[in-house]
Amino acid sequence: MKVNVLKENLAKALNTVGRIVSTKNSLPVLSHVLITTEDGRLKLASTNLEIGITYKIGGKVEENGSITVPARLFTELVNSLPGEKVEIKLNDLTLNIKAGNFKSEIKGITAEEFPLIPDIKESKVLSLDNKIFKDALKLVSFAAAVDDSRPVLSGVYIVKEGKKLTFAATDSYRLAEKNITLSKDLGIDFSVIVPIRTINEISKIISDIDGEINVYLSDNQISFEVDGVELVSRLIEGQYPNYRQIIPEGSETKANIKSSDFLNLLKVAVLFARENANTLTIKINPKGKLEVNVVANQVGSNESFLDADVTGKGGEISFNGRFIMDYIQNVNAKEISLEITGELTPGIMKTAEIKDYIYIIMPLRS
Amino acid sequence: MKVNVLKENLAKALNTVGRIVSTKNSLPVLSHVLITTEDGRLKLASTNLEIGITYKIGGKVEENGSITVPARLFTELVNSLPGEKVEIKLNDLTLNIKAGNFKSEIKGITAEEFPLIPDIKESKVLSLDNKIFKDALKLVSFAAAVDDSRPVLSGVYIVKEGKKLTFAATDSYRLAEKNITLSKDLGIDFSVIVPIRTINEISKIISDIDGEINVYLSDNQISFEVDGVELVSRLIEGQYPNYRQIIPEGSETKANIKSSDFLNLLKVAVLFARENANTLTIKINPKGKLEVNVVANQVGSNESFLDADVTGKGGEISFNGRFIMDYIQNVNAKEISLEITGELTPGIMKTAEIKDYIYIIMPLRS
Repeated sequence: MKVNVLKENLAKALNTVGRIVSTKNSLPVLSHVLITTEDGRLKLASTNLEIGITYKIGGKVEENGSITVPARLFTELVNSLPGEKVEIKLNDLTLNIKAGNFKSEIKGITAEEFPLIPDIKESKVLSLDNKIFKDALKLVSFAAAVDDSRPVLSGVYIVKEGKKLTFAATDSYRLAEKNITLSKDLGIDFSVIVPIRTINEISKIISDIDGEINVYLSDNQISFEVDGVELVSRLIEGQYPNYRQIIPEGSETKANIKSSDFLNLLKVAVLFARENANTLTIKINPKGKLEVNVVANQVGSNESFLDADVTGKGGEISFNGRFIMDYIQNVNAKEISLEITGELTPGIMKTAEIKDYIYIIMPLRS
Repeated sequence: MKVNVLKENLAKALNTVGRIVSTKNSLPVLSHVLITTEDGRLKLASTNLEIGITYKIGGKVEENGSITVPARLFTELVNSLPGEKVEIKLNDLTLNIKAGNFKSEIKGITAEEFPLIPDIKESKVLSLDNKIFKDALKLVSFAAAVDDSRPVLSGVYIVKEGKKLTFAATDSYRLAEKNITLSKDLGIDFSVIVPIRTINEISKIISDIDGEINVYLSDNQISFEVDGVELVSRLIEGQYPNYRQIIPEGSETKANIKSSDFLNLLKVAVLFARENANTLTIKINPKGKLEVNVVANQVGSNESFLDADVTGKGGEISFNGRFIMDYIQNVNAKEISLEITGELTPGIMKTAEIKDYIYIIMPLRS
């Protein structure tokens, strides 16, 4: 192998594929990145056995070949090299890297030892604008469970029926659902649960890329591809809960609130709510006031209020304050609404600024 | 106690005194901050039994009193409160805090339980410009030992003789010494070893304050005071090593190098030097070149070079690359010099941009 590439491109590719590489593996080759020439381009690949990422960059390929080298060392080296160009050349199992006044050698492991990353590009099931896809993921992914005690909840549920694409996530204490109407239907309906780690990785990978994202499916794998970068992941097996039954039909009281003011109130309230699993009491006064109260036996108490545009008879309910903060911080809307019906019915959060999007919070005993 | 203060002042004071408060104490009152009215001002104080900090702010004191409250909760509360003013009022052992549309109560512990922070303001030994003091500390403190295996090395040695003030630190592998000429001599000579944690704290505290710093000494305590903020610390007992004997008299070879280029070379070299305790070999070529080489049996090797202004016969020596990086990153000079004499004599680093300052690095076997 002998290839000349732009340092910037190589650094970007390595920083992306390196994200999932663990240095704590018992199998040394899993802390390596696979480097291969393919169709006149240089392909970098990494895997943690759950997720695999491949990234292709252009370059001047003078000799074909492949090798694996330690991902962290190679990435840090390329990030630190000066100048615009890097020459990489394979000599037996040693990779020679030349750039400016630097000459480095990195000892590798043969490419044959690298685990196969499955290629599942046959059945394309989605093709849509990157930004729409990314925004939808951001609106639901924060509601997924962070632990694996119920595996199906530690992922995002994605369902396609005709031109309707639904994203949902819940940790059983709160739920977020976003619907999208596709501009083109590729003809294959599906429902899958994608691990939250995969969702987070693909969100970061596509965060600064424009264009279309293509999604491919096989029996137990999903693949996302955008502009030369591909991420393949296992799917979570199992039945996603029938979450629609917990979404209330309507509500007795609705308060429209300025997001930033509400967030400031909650930030202070949760300081006092730590000892009670973030439990705070919200009182909606029909005269146009929303109050947030916390009584913490050990540390003290906190009371605060803000003006709200209230419709309905008013009421009082207890929630996990962090869950409301999560919503406000992820939707990024100027104004949001909170709807409640008595102390035992889940609360509904919406914003007029994002359509086909709903967030449900289970009430707590105060 | 009833006091009205500006939120900004209270937040600044709490953020400063809160720095040393641990939340992991077996003694609850040590995770608290002491709040006292004193001479028409509000005094905040904290201690970790090694270091004590007091911070006085102005305010409208309507009723005197004192209490201790959890430092973290009170600090986060004040940082999060809106508006300009805060009213604090003591009701038995509960502190009431009012600001804008917030009313909070924090349960406290009586001030009598708070450890006494010694007042050692009798013997003032130094009074000098804050910035000069801070800059001198920065030039030496990075060379102090980070562990306590030899307690005297885990501090900065400060010696005053007449108008000469010397700062020194060494971990026995490298040494930094900076000398200052005082504009006024308060008449008391001394030599003390100040714990590195104290040095780091006082450096941060004074980093954004202008004016004079006053230093006071007692038998085993030192106190730094600047603009209403005071830090009291224990001193390290013991004899500081006679470090002057390891400073070479002169050198055979000297290379003047552009700092930023040298730093870039070293950043790459240490990537390969990790497995060898950062050992790299530096070759100074009398024809005007400095080479940095690393051979790492496990990962590979790296060679690099840069242009240098060389005087003398040239030579080769091995150093811990991190120690050279520490120097370059802390002196912040455009050009630095490296002087060597054979493989076994310590290297000398200097810069024409900072006078009365020397840095010594012990050689390693390559």
